[in-house]
Amino acid sequence: MFYYSDSQLDQWLMDDIALGDLTTRCMGIGSKPGRMAYSYRQTTRTSGVEVAARLLRKCGLNVEQLVEDGQDVEAGTTLILADGRADQLHSGWKVTQNIMEWSGGVATYMARMLEAARAVNPALHIACTRKSIPGTKTLANAAVVHGGGIIHRGGTAETILLFANHRCFTDSPADFAAHIAKLKSAAPEKKVIVEADTMDEAKEALKARPDVLQLDKFTPADIEAMVKMAADSAPGCLISMAGGLNKDNIADYARTGAHLAVTSAPYYAKPVDVKVRMEKR
Amino acid sequence: MFYYSDSQLDQWLMDDIALGDLTTRCMGIGSKPGRMAYSYRQTTRTSGVEVAARLLRKCGLNVEQLVEDGQDVEAGTTLILADGRADQLHSGWKVTQNIMEWSGGVATYMARMLEAARAVNPALHIACTRKSIPGTKTLANAAVVHGGGIIHRGGTAETILLFANHRCFTDSPADFAAHIAKLKSAAPEKKVIVEADTMDEAKEALKARPDVLQLDKFTPADIEAMVKMAADSAPGCLISMAGGLNKDNIADYARTGAHLAVTSAPYYAKPVDVKVRMEKR
Amino acid sequence: MFYYSDSQLDQWLMDDIALGDLTTRCMGIGSKPGRMAYSYRQTTRTSGVEVAARLLRKCGLNVEQLVEDGQDVEAGTTLILADGRADQLHSGWKVTQNIMEWSGGVATYMARMLEAARAVNPALHIACTRKSIPGTKTLANAAVVHGGGIIHRGGTAETILLFANHRCFTDSPADFAAHIAKLKSAAPEKKVIVEADTMDEAKEALKARPDVLQLDKFTPADIEAMVKMAADSAPGCLISMAGGLNKDNIADYARTGAHLAVTSAPYYAKPVDVKVRMEKR
Amino acid sequence: MFYYSDSQLDQWLMDDIALGDLTTRCMGIGSKPGRMAYSYRQTTRTSGVEVAARLLRKCGLNVEQLVEDGQDVEAGTTLILADGRADQLHSGWKVTQNIMEWSGGVATYMARMLEAARAVNPALHIACTRKSIPGTKTLANAAVVHGGGIIHRGGTAETILLFANHRCFTDSPADFAAHIAKLKSAAPEKKVIVEADTMDEAKEALKARPDVLQLDKFTPADIEAMVKMAADSAPGCLISMAGGLNKDNIADYARTGAHLAVTSAPYYAKPVDVKVRMEKR
Amino acid sequence: MFYYSDSQLDQWLMDDIALGDLTTRCMGIGSKPGRMAYSYRQTTRTSGVEVAARLLRKCGLNVEQLVEDGQDVEAGTTLILADGRADQLHSGWKVTQNIMEWSGGVATYMARMLEAARAVNPALHIACTRKSIPGTKTLANAAVVHGGGIIHRGGTAETILLFANHRCFTDSPADFAAHIAKLKSAAPEKKVIVEADTMDEAKEALKARPDVLQLDKFTPADIEAMVKMAADSAPGCLISMAGGLNKDNIADYARTGAHLAVTSAPYYAKPVDVKVRMEKR
Amino acid sequence: MFYYSDSQLDQWLMDDIALGDLTTRCMGIGSKPGRMAYSYRQTTRTSGVEVAARLLRKCGLNVEQLVEDGQDVEAGTTLILADGRADQLHSGWKVTQNIMEWSGGVATYMARMLEAARAVNPALHIACTRKSIPGTKTLANAAVVHGGGIIHRGGTAETILLFANHRCFTDSPADFAAHIAKLKSAAPEKKVIVEADTMDEAKEALKARPDVLQLDKFTPADIEAMVKMAADSAPGCLISMAGGLNKDNIADYARTGAHLAVTSAPYYAKPVDVKVRMEKR
Repeated sequence: MFYYSDSQLDQWLMDDIALGDLTTRCMGIGSKPGRMAYSYRQTTRTSGVEVAARLLRKCGLNVEQLVEDGQDVEAGTTLILADGRADQLHSGWKVTQNIMEWSGGVATYMARMLEAARAVNPALHIACTRKSIPGTKTLANAAVVHGGGIIHRGGTAETILLFANHRCFTDSPADFAAHIAKLKSAAPEKKVIVEADTMDEAKEALKARPDVLQLDKFTPADIEAMVKMAADSAPGCLISMAGGLNKDNIADYARTGAHLAVTSAPYYAKPVDVKVRMEKR
Repeated sequence: MFYYSDSQLDQWLMDDIALGDLTTRCMGIGSKPGRMAYSYRQTTRTSGVEVAARLLRKCGLNVEQLVEDGQDVEAGTTLILADGRADQLHSGWKVTQNIMEWSGGVATYMARMLEAARAVNPALHIACTRKSIPGTKTLANAAVVHGGGIIHRGGTAETILLFANHRCFTDSPADFAAHIAKLKSAAPEKKVIVEADTMDEAKEALKARPDVLQLDKFTPADIEAMVKMAADSAPGCLISMAGGLNKDNIADYARTGAHLAVTSAPYYAKPVDVKVRMEKR
Repeated sequence: MFYYSDSQLDQWLMDDIALGDLTTRCMGIGSKPGRMAYSYRQTTRTSGVEVAARLLRKCGLNVEQLVEDGQDVEAGTTLILADGRADQLHSGWKVTQNIMEWSGGVATYMARMLEAARAVNPALHIACTRKSIPGTKTLANAAVVHGGGIIHRGGTAETILLFANHRCFTDSPADFAAHIAKLKSAAPEKKVIVEADTMDEAKEALKARPDVLQLDKFTPADIEAMVKMAADSAPGCLISMAGGLNKDNIADYARTGAHLAVTSAPYYAKPVDVKVRMEKR
Repeated sequence: MFYYSDSQLDQWLMDDIALGDLTTRCMGIGSKPGRMAYSYRQTTRTSGVEVAARLLRKCGLNVEQLVEDGQDVEAGTTLILADGRADQLHSGWKVTQNIMEWSGGVATYMARMLEAARAVNPALHIACTRKSIPGTKTLANAAVVHGGGIIHRGGTAETILLFANHRCFTDSPADFAAHIAKLKSAAPEKKVIVEADTMDEAKEALKARPDVLQLDKFTPADIEAMVKMAADSAPGCLISMAGGLNKDNIADYARTGAHLAVTSAPYYAKPVDVKVRMEKR
Repeated sequence: MFYYSDSQLDQWLMDDIALGDLTTRCMGIGSKPGRMAYSYRQTTRTSGVEVAARLLRKCGLNVEQLVEDGQDVEAGTTLILADGRADQLHSGWKVTQNIMEWSGGVATYMARMLEAARAVNPALHIACTRKSIPGTKTLANAAVVHGGGIIHRGGTAETILLFANHRCFTDSPADFAAHIAKLKSAAPEKKVIVEADTMDEAKEALKARPDVLQLDKFTPADIEAMVKMAADSAPGCLISMAGGLNKDNIADYARTGAHLAVTSAPYYAKPVDVKVRMEKR
Repeated sequence: MFYYSDSQLDQWLMDDIALGDLTTRCMGIGSKPGRMAYSYRQTTRTSGVEVAARLLRKCGLNVEQLVEDGQDVEAGTTLILADGRADQLHSGWKVTQNIMEWSGGVATYMARMLEAARAVNPALHIACTRKSIPGTKTLANAAVVHGGGIIHRGGTAETILLFANHRCFTDSPADFAAHIAKLKSAAPEKKVIVEADTMDEAKEALKARPDVLQLDKFTPADIEAMVKMAADSAPGCLISMAGGLNKDNIADYARTGAHLAVTSAPYYAKPVDVKVRMEKR
């Protein structure tokens, strides 16, 4: 369950409908009773449906939610039915359509990327970075989870992730052994995750046996080499891949035998098409 | 000038750095003085730079902003320099990088789309819809403007835009003449913009001379026909095109002679790459 | 439909009832069941009734709303009935009474001003400026609409409105032709509205045929002259009047034949009197 | 000192300038340097000047504040000078003008009402009720204080004020002696203030010696009678007058010798006129 | 009734469950139906139960609230039953448990402290200061009231309380007579409360007959002396004791005959133990 | 660095000083210049000093911060000097004093508890639970870190922590092996932490080798037994102790050789005493 605050819901609504729908007002149709029905125009992994239903209820509508988030749904299936006055329907229309289109796009991308990856490496996890589009954090993370992915880290306090931008402040930036020992000692309830930018760094880091070694912008061949090296010399250390992974190239990376892929690609997925049809009742 | 509330800035920061950067804390490097420098890895239309500078200042850093929003900047140009403690630098790092990457992506897409369009139709405007990604409204609209585009409508109260979903609540949905007369009379300070979904609707609407006729998902050929018809029979009525327009197909649409293109494509642009390098001082 | 965020509703409540009603607490009557009934002491154009009902529900009361916003209602008509505990009734009492009194005052003023205007010029619209009392924006705009008025502009991004304070930044402030041409070209979906402060400015502006010419603090005689001049030389250009218009002088202005009156007067209307009677049950 | 939260300041700004000033943008004048000067068009008791200066700083302007709140200032005196870019000036313009006009109107009304009252009763206090216009609480209370008035009660938890709507929940609503005894015992740090709606109630209440007896909608003659009765039989009990008091009738009420006048009239004062002139620099 | 804004409720929830319960998600049990039951492990004065029920409803649960706030309840009594999905139960669990534990601790402390005090001085009131733990204001004040205490002052605008830190800004800090006269005249609806830090100050203040004389960090013997002196020379002036009072020493202070005890001790009470048991249904 | 949003800072201020300090206003001393100096009355581990300085600046004061958070400071050392008007000083006074007292109390408790623990077990970490007092999260976590402690988990999404309340929703609640395997596979970047309530559960869990085994309410003897068992049969598995640990009993627990102590005790520490002295300048 992803919880949304009322202020988040209201911000979405107010961004769109502050001061009402002028066209509805000028047409004088606001009090006419009607119904609004939602469906996808293509097969979609659902996400954003539950929160859309909650938004429509905030507009005063009677809402029937017909599918759950996290399902694969065929084009044309009715997702939500909402009944009420025309001004209420027009208040909720685009906000919810937009959320369902964007969230559905992210979840569907994630689901397809995962299928492509697991076809060659059934145990692989795909985690999405904290670089979701500014302002979309909860919605984005929910969509990732609805697509079958996991959340890499919800913020800088959640996990240990050692970057070069940390190491540069120490007296010996390349001394991975010292850094990893320090981090293991300092954070007993966290895995120590270390990012390497080159093969040399990766090898050096591996000697110190981090919990996870994250390889940034490595070729599949280099990743495969590191996976083998880790299996030999650092059992229990997981290999994670980051940098430029997407739906089209994930199979090549998955084949390396790494344990985890870290990506931001789903956030930029093309939105799905949600059809919203109103009718007078 | 696009104004951002402090609560918006703080939400972005808190989404990322609530409870601090654990790695910095565990490494014990928080109080070390350092500098952080930002640059693009490719030529970019700037956007998000000013707001990033403001965010870095909220983290307690001394900030020098070296470029303005809305400029074309070469790869490698230093954009921002920030000085302070390592924990402050790590607090501001990813939030600002992420904003600059996303905003730069949108602005650059818009700038390139506009170039492609104006190469064949120098007077064409490109307006972005209100379907920005949920939660990104101000940032998205700023990026569109920095890219040279305009804002289609900031919300449902800003302009008159008659959809089929409005007409269906009237007694005679197809009677464009009555609808347009009603709207012109009801909103003297607004243009009356009417969306048509078919050629028949477009012709019917044109007879009633709306201020703008918006053609949804029309082919370039049909649009061109309507442009000519409008010039003949409804001088002063602008023709607007919507539905599926993007950077790759805009030239074909621009050639029709229409006055305005309405699109959501820039919102889904691939982000640009921002390099952030820290160093101890 | 005017949508209010929960944070707006809660701000109103907390401004009044944070930490509860001390008198109710000291009297030890908080848990007694009771009923509260609302009525006007004079004929009123309703506004604020729907939002008051929503506030009372937030206090935990069972609420029956008996009239809609935007109606003319006789003195003494029961507007709302609310049932619940005495502490809940006292929590909702004054906040809602105050909103209904203020909103009713604005709506009623607007309705009466419009009647006076349309008695002599049936097509005249009255629009309220964005200078609503700080912090009252949604409530004020709703009341204006419930009174039959329209919203002049919801903010600086909604319409084009050229002031002398804009022109002074150009190289040729008095060159209306250049300014209007520039604005028409820059904002294809907006009407170009231009404010003139003198007859000379008005005439100069008219030559360039703006969509709307707004005359600030003109006499009715001068306005009438401009209406005629516009009809002759700039057909389609609407004449708008601003500056000092109110319920008492609107008829004189309406007689000029202008198309639109712009005013802030209703915001400062005297509130109506709402009677709230509680009884033990 | 009245403190305003940043979210309050930002709400005022965003209500007006969300997405920027479109006219400035379309005119292409945003980056031109300029200056903005504020003055009143009539003698005014200042209020809202300090918060206006703070708002202008939030827009990025350099601000010189030349008068303090709570002073009497002549027409034409420069109040604030603000320097910066045209887009910054246009962002801050109307919001601050509007606040200074409204706040100045309330403060000036209060100052004049107080002068009229104290001309006949130098010890009289005028307190403003908690029925300030919804959403204006801090601004309104500040203006009242700048005008020389006091705040009746900041909310329902601040003071004990017994209404008929409280008494009706007891077994013996008319038993003032029991109510006042109960309240005195329950709230040792508060004065017990009791409202009477009729002479009979007033007399009954007086016997029980509340700290303050508030007479709602009494005639000056009846008030005068009660003042005398209190002086005789309940020394130390202050007499307070409420209901319909305003600048025009306050002298009549002041003459009664009552100690306190409670009113909402200043909140509905006509705003003062603030002139804002921009110039290019 | 203590009203909580939705943003307050959501802040508590989001502080704990933003992005959901990862363990529930990883276990794949989120959609299983279940029930959650709350009880105390010791006798407790209830507080926080009503707001906990409201929080659980915000998580989508069906909630049965079985006790009211402000009651003494035995260990083991069921307080709340909540039914729903496992992910909803886990979303609401700890937030509500934590609130009920903390609020119950404060209320119970206050109830026991009051019992100890009234055993020797049945008329004594105990008021809690405004120094509640930062961020807990409404919850803390509610718990104090549920425990039988009163609120000393909700903020600096609520009452007159003269400290040495005020007097030091005057020309004659020790001139209590002048200060008290000034305050009585300036605030007719407030009691004048004055703090003394020494016996000399207390005697000086008493001469000027404040409404309440607050003795900070006085010994019981000195307090008793002042109570007698006040009864003789300043009838009607209440004596209030502050500084270091708690459950263990209150009886000694109560015996002095003072009218009021002011304390912050309940805020730091040990929380009660709330048992929360879930079961699958 | 712990970042505080402006809305958090403003909430603290407004909780205390909304509508200003009435006593300052009634005394007429608001504009007098003065200075305010802060010091502890006992040796203290600093916390809340930096945020206090930021709050005082928001009140318009000139502030000199003389110590950093996280230091041990002697009684009497000046911590902060603030200069400005009396009304500004009184606005910032109690809010900041209160924060420094509470935060200092938590940090000092944590520091002393850690000393007691490390005297017998130098490698032991003490982590504070997420059961901080409602509404104090950031402040509480900062104080814990300033005291030398670590944060157990910032929320339910941060770590995997398997409770009986999770297991009860599975088909075989006691099958730790299955649960731990599932969790390890589902969350590759997280340690798997499992809570046991009995020795039997602990032994069963240990067989499945979680990353951390958390023992709830175990005796030191039982903990010691489990530490040995883990060293023998599950190397790498850390033993964590929770339930009732505090400053007075921590040494007994530390002696067991466990790796981690989890506690909420510091949140309920007695606040330190902060002296704030004002003087006229």
